[in-house]
Amino acid sequence: MEKPRQKQPASRFWSYVTQTVEPYVPGEQPRERLIKLNTNENPYPPSPAVAAALRNADPARLRLYPDPSSLLLRQSIGAYYNLAENQIFCGNGSDEILAFCFQAFFNPAGLSDSKAAAPNEQIVFPDVTYSFYPVYAHRYDIPYRTVNLLPDLSMPLADLMAPSAGIILANPNAPTGVGLTLTTLAKIAASAPDRLIIIDEAYIDFGGESAICLLADYDNLLIIQTLSKSRALAGLRVGCAIGSPRLIEGLRRIRDSFNSYTVDRIAQKAATASIKAVDWFETSRAAVIATREWFSAELKELQFTVIPSAANFVFVQHPKRTAPWLQARLRERQILVRHFTQDRINNYLRISIGRQEDMEIVRNVLQELCQGPLTAGQLS
Amino acid sequence: MEKPRQKQPASRFWSYVTQTVEPYVPGEQPRERLIKLNTNENPYPPSPAVAAALRNADPARLRLYPDPSSLLLRQSIGAYYNLAENQIFCGNGSDEILAFCFQAFFNPAGLSDSKAAAPNEQIVFPDVTYSFYPVYAHRYDIPYRTVNLLPDLSMPLADLMAPSAGIILANPNAPTGVGLTLTTLAKIAASAPDRLIIIDEAYIDFGGESAICLLADYDNLLIIQTLSKSRALAGLRVGCAIGSPRLIEGLRRIRDSFNSYTVDRIAQKAATASIKAVDWFETSRAAVIATREWFSAELKELQFTVIPSAANFVFVQHPKRTAPWLQARLRERQILVRHFTQDRINNYLRISIGRQEDMEIVRNVLQELCQGPLTAGQLS
Repeated sequence: MEKPRQKQPASRFWSYVTQTVEPYVPGEQPRERLIKLNTNENPYPPSPAVAAALRNADPARLRLYPDPSSLLLRQSIGAYYNLAENQIFCGNGSDEILAFCFQAFFNPAGLSDSKAAAPNEQIVFPDVTYSFYPVYAHRYDIPYRTVNLLPDLSMPLADLMAPSAGIILANPNAPTGVGLTLTTLAKIAASAPDRLIIIDEAYIDFGGESAICLLADYDNLLIIQTLSKSRALAGLRVGCAIGSPRLIEGLRRIRDSFNSYTVDRIAQKAATASIKAVDWFETSRAAVIATREWFSAELKELQFTVIPSAANFVFVQHPKRTAPWLQARLRERQILVRHFTQDRINNYLRISIGRQEDMEIVRNVLQELCQGPLTAGQLS
Repeated sequence: MEKPRQKQPASRFWSYVTQTVEPYVPGEQPRERLIKLNTNENPYPPSPAVAAALRNADPARLRLYPDPSSLLLRQSIGAYYNLAENQIFCGNGSDEILAFCFQAFFNPAGLSDSKAAAPNEQIVFPDVTYSFYPVYAHRYDIPYRTVNLLPDLSMPLADLMAPSAGIILANPNAPTGVGLTLTTLAKIAASAPDRLIIIDEAYIDFGGESAICLLADYDNLLIIQTLSKSRALAGLRVGCAIGSPRLIEGLRRIRDSFNSYTVDRIAQKAATASIKAVDWFETSRAAVIATREWFSAELKELQFTVIPSAANFVFVQHPKRTAPWLQARLRERQILVRHFTQDRINNYLRISIGRQEDMEIVRNVLQELCQGPLTAGQLS
């Protein structure tokens, strides 16, 4: 586990953690009008049922605290997945729930007798994955190690299953979009029944296989979902964890020592309406999937390497144009995409799937940028 | 500093923290119709400007992440207090911000060389105060000690100012309602300019003196406010911290290693409208204050001891009726008030100030309960 280096304190009041923490950097939130394909938001609005829930919300009730347990929302999620409400925990976005998970289920290095944690005291996640995981591990002082994705960016299963204190997996993985099959997930779960596996299914609804059906057989699985992506509610901040009642109770204990009421009244109400709006959900995600498949095929025609995606984004690189150069040129055309400077993926772009008409514009701009011979500037 | 005793683990996946944490217990949130005077909610609805903000919110925009910095909301709070926006931090309720403060500005015991923290490594707060403070201290392993309120429940200033790593004060204090003057606060701030003082002003708008005007002279003050009480937005979950830009940056660093987007789009919008609705705010808090003064005088007539309150609740005890007995009898009449079992205050009731007509009912029920001779059951 690497430790962030101690920096010069910027205030005499900052704690050691505040001085040394390495915050997560989210994608830019621009104020101008752009084709915004950098934070994997849904290009379609949320269900009309969400609009109705907002319209029908009684502002006078806002004077009262919300239900701390989000009961009606948990019941609607339970009904959707055919699970009991005590298998479900709701939070202020899946990031909050992930942060609770690191605190609820893993022990900090300080509690270990030896300074260097043994492999079975470390948690494990891939080197290329959601970049908040190492932030949480540093923040809560959880010993960890990363395992390198294989050259095709698929999961190194043997390394992943070596002894450890827990596994964090995004399925489909971000920013690659690569999904794992249920067979693989079951194999990982069965390999060590006393080891917790947290599966972050933020993008599962765009073609992945949810591990929810494995919960009956494996109580060492905890599944995290969000309403930000497939439910088009990034602005509302609602996520959920799904697992055994004891795991859910662990999350509740951590929440109740932090903030009793993390999901507000309006968010609970609108999220509940969204979960019930099954037809809208099916139509909307099908549209995103269809556009992703079209866009992926078009980019292959333009000689891009397109990692097979089960998410609402694609991860692509071009043999003759660098990712930073392409990102900068797209930005000039008011098209925002995400580039990561991390080794091994620093020549890839992550492009969220927008509306079909926007993706046609992006395709055409990319065609223009990639055709013709190289000039020196195109590699900068 | 006392440590919670380790309990039998309820799940083999729970971390040490999850096993040993002692969660905060909020007041009951009933589903039936009651006169609800147990969680200090505002009896009046939020400003009509909040209703308009909800009505005018574009549901389609919920597909996009919120502004992580809550810029417009911070600007409205800055305009209200005549402060710069970089002196203001917004969070998902003031509880979230308080939890961030414990992490941002105080160091855990594990970083100290000695097991038992020296007095100047401990933070300090009163024995009778908001019961979330010791929960946070335990949760984040911050060494602390409490100082006993004086017999009249006022602040023991000499004890408070003894050497320590920081001071947490609720002003007015909860659940007593007792306020501190600006002169006292300035004296505490001046006593140790390198010691941070966090002033939790959750109830300040009901007659207390805000320390905001001291910020220009004392950069070791950090003020926490909430929109839950005087703005009648408990259901929306918005609070703010006000202090020097370096303190605000410390909070931002902790937030960004936890959850980038803690305040949702609707909450930012409605809270901004609420801050601008100055006339509603003045009328609403004046009504609460007037009812509190009337109710306090009436209860004194009924022989209650009424601690002078600068908040939207009163803290009272009766010489001839026990608090648990009164609470149970009020509950039978559908009147909910709060009772704390903690030593020294276990014969007090904390009664939130409701609408005038409701407080007249409560007064009449209390008169009935307190008149006549004692029977054995009345002391149970």
